Amino acid sequence: MDYKSYFRPTVDAMGGYTPGEQPKVLDLIKLNTNENPYPPSPRVEEVLRDFDTAKLRLYPEPTADSLRDVIASVNGVQRENVIVGNGSDDILTIIVRCFCDAKRKMACIDPTYSLYPVLGELQGAECVRIELDDDFSLPDDILEQAAVANLLMFARPNAPTGNLFPRERVEEICAHFRGIVFIDEAYVDFSENNCLDLAMRYPNVIVSRTMSKSYALAGVRLGYAVANAKIIDGMMKMKDSYNVNMLTQRIAIEAFKDGEYLRRMVDKIISTRNRIAAALKELGFTMVPSSTNFLFVSPPDGNGRLYFEELRKHNIIVRYFPGKKTGDYARISIGTDAEMDRVMEVTRSIYGAK
Amino acid sequence: MDYKSYFRPTVDAMGGYTPGEQPKVLDLIKLNTNENPYPPSPRVEEVLRDFDTAKLRLYPEPTADSLRDVIASVNGVQRENVIVGNGSDDILTIIVRCFCDAKRKMACIDPTYSLYPVLGELQGAECVRIELDDDFSLPDDILEQAAVANLLMFARPNAPTGNLFPRERVEEICAHFRGIVFIDEAYVDFSENNCLDLAMRYPNVIVSRTMSKSYALAGVRLGYAVANAKIIDGMMKMKDSYNVNMLTQRIAIEAFKDGEYLRRMVDKIISTRNRIAAALKELGFTMVPSSTNFLFVSPPDGNGRLYFEELRKHNIIVRYFPGKKTGDYARISIGTDAEMDRVMEVTRSIYGAK
Repeated sequence: MDYKSYFRPTVDAMGGYTPGEQPKVLDLIKLNTNENPYPPSPRVEEVLRDFDTAKLRLYPEPTADSLRDVIASVNGVQRENVIVGNGSDDILTIIVRCFCDAKRKMACIDPTYSLYPVLGELQGAECVRIELDDDFSLPDDILEQAAVANLLMFARPNAPTGNLFPRERVEEICAHFRGIVFIDEAYVDFSENNCLDLAMRYPNVIVSRTMSKSYALAGVRLGYAVANAKIIDGMMKMKDSYNVNMLTQRIAIEAFKDGEYLRRMVDKIISTRNRIAAALKELGFTMVPSSTNFLFVSPPDGNGRLYFEELRKHNIIVRYFPGKKTGDYARISIGTDAEMDRVMEVTRSIYGAK
Repeated sequence: MDYKSYFRPTVDAMGGYTPGEQPKVLDLIKLNTNENPYPPSPRVEEVLRDFDTAKLRLYPEPTADSLRDVIASVNGVQRENVIVGNGSDDILTIIVRCFCDAKRKMACIDPTYSLYPVLGELQGAECVRIELDDDFSLPDDILEQAAVANLLMFARPNAPTGNLFPRERVEEICAHFRGIVFIDEAYVDFSENNCLDLAMRYPNVIVSRTMSKSYALAGVRLGYAVANAKIIDGMMKMKDSYNVNMLTQRIAIEAFKDGEYLRRMVDKIISTRNRIAAALKELGFTMVPSSTNFLFVSPPDGNGRLYFEELRKHNIIVRYFPGKKTGDYARISIGTDAEMDRVMEVTRSIYGAK
């Protein structure tokens, strides 16, 4: 069959985003995509057991009002300040499509969630990359560098580095940037503070969250964004009408209501994280202080790729990000205590003798 | 709080798509969004009852290979010919984003699924509207009118009209149009034939399907498209990485395997449809021949809006599409026999005496 390309040239030219591997082999320790090692709230099981499947013949609530009310209540905002998405990836796509195009650039820090510039490419919007300082902190001239863009995106806590930019610095950026400031709080439940109030106080600030990490619900796809009502209204026009399916809406409502379970699981993960961080430091690892459910660590010889590959040989999958600064590191999601003990055992066998 | 708009002007200027109402009142007869009146396959219930909720902590298969294999097998194609979406709305968004932009126009027939031009607006792509003939058939000069576009979209069977454009005419369009021909087969299980083979035989043809109608799974959001591997490859770059959640993948696999149940429900709906069509004709209604699970009917006085409003007074919701030609009609989704008997009872009370 003859083939000429019908695609927009930008689609042909790009490679696409590569998500972390979802291996099908069973006895691997999977610490590569920052999933929660514990199951979601027991209420999720109840939802599935009790769900009336006959209802699935109907479309879900297009504006997901019941779910948005619960999210609003958990966060002390109003329904009109909340939009839900098919995972926070959906929220990110909506944002880039709302605020960027061939004339309206985006800016993002580097490194950060590597999907952002891919979304810019897909939208045909130029992406200004703003390099972080050597310790992965925000550069002093971030506002000057971002000034050409209509959208500035970063994660806080940042990924894959795990550090938390100072709140005052972020507020300063919100107050002075002339476009939209998007703060991705995917990992915020593992950190000391958040920026939700900035989304309510500044007309140009959007904060997003996800159930994929702290809530252990990556499989159901639920992300949300909080901003002032005018921003949310515009974003609602861009989303697919029924972007969040009926089961996910129901599951999310119950999981959000179980704040006690969330807190317990998060505390457990933070405690494991801190224990492993200390153990790795003892072996001579350096690392970025983590406010997340992962550690971004550099082995004693500074060879992140080698560490990644050695763990892989022992059936432990972590994530490696090639790059000038990131290449010295490997990113390890925090698993169960047993999984992390195995990581330490293998790590000691590699670096312990040195 | 001061507000200036940060949005792309096209987003500010547009109204957004309005999906059919999903009323929360209980004792309504809901015949407005072409949902299936019967529950999905009993296997769906089994999936939910047996599902290991601990697995929801993991991301779903990003490329949904297991599901694509089942879809490929059901349709006699290969996995590489299939992409799945979060409902076929997701597929539509992916297609418009792949093939259209400020320079690459889209074309769609009018009337057809009213979401298409909205997707064009969101993408900043001009949409050429090609008016159907008075009997809602394809105009002779469709190729000439569409020639300026890179993407030509229509539904077959068409919505909201319900008629089936002749296959030979559609093949002619596929053979001669210089861009992508997109054929939306949302209602195809209720019709006499389909165009899937065209997607396999022509390099520029994409056919989409959904589980929202015939499979009674509008709530889970699963649509898919079939095309040659190069088209699918490009579309995969555009989709969100984890666009179909884990439960939907699992449910869809089981429902696709239960072809016997599908056939039984579809036959039942077609039989009800034909019975009601005959009864309405007896009352002096005119209608478009339906190859779908709905009827597009014009009452004896030709006042579609009045019929819509009268049914609404009796707690029966159907859909009305204002417009030069569509305004003479109301669209009635086929419900259960009992629901349709009630529709006939009310309809007779309005038009029976004339």
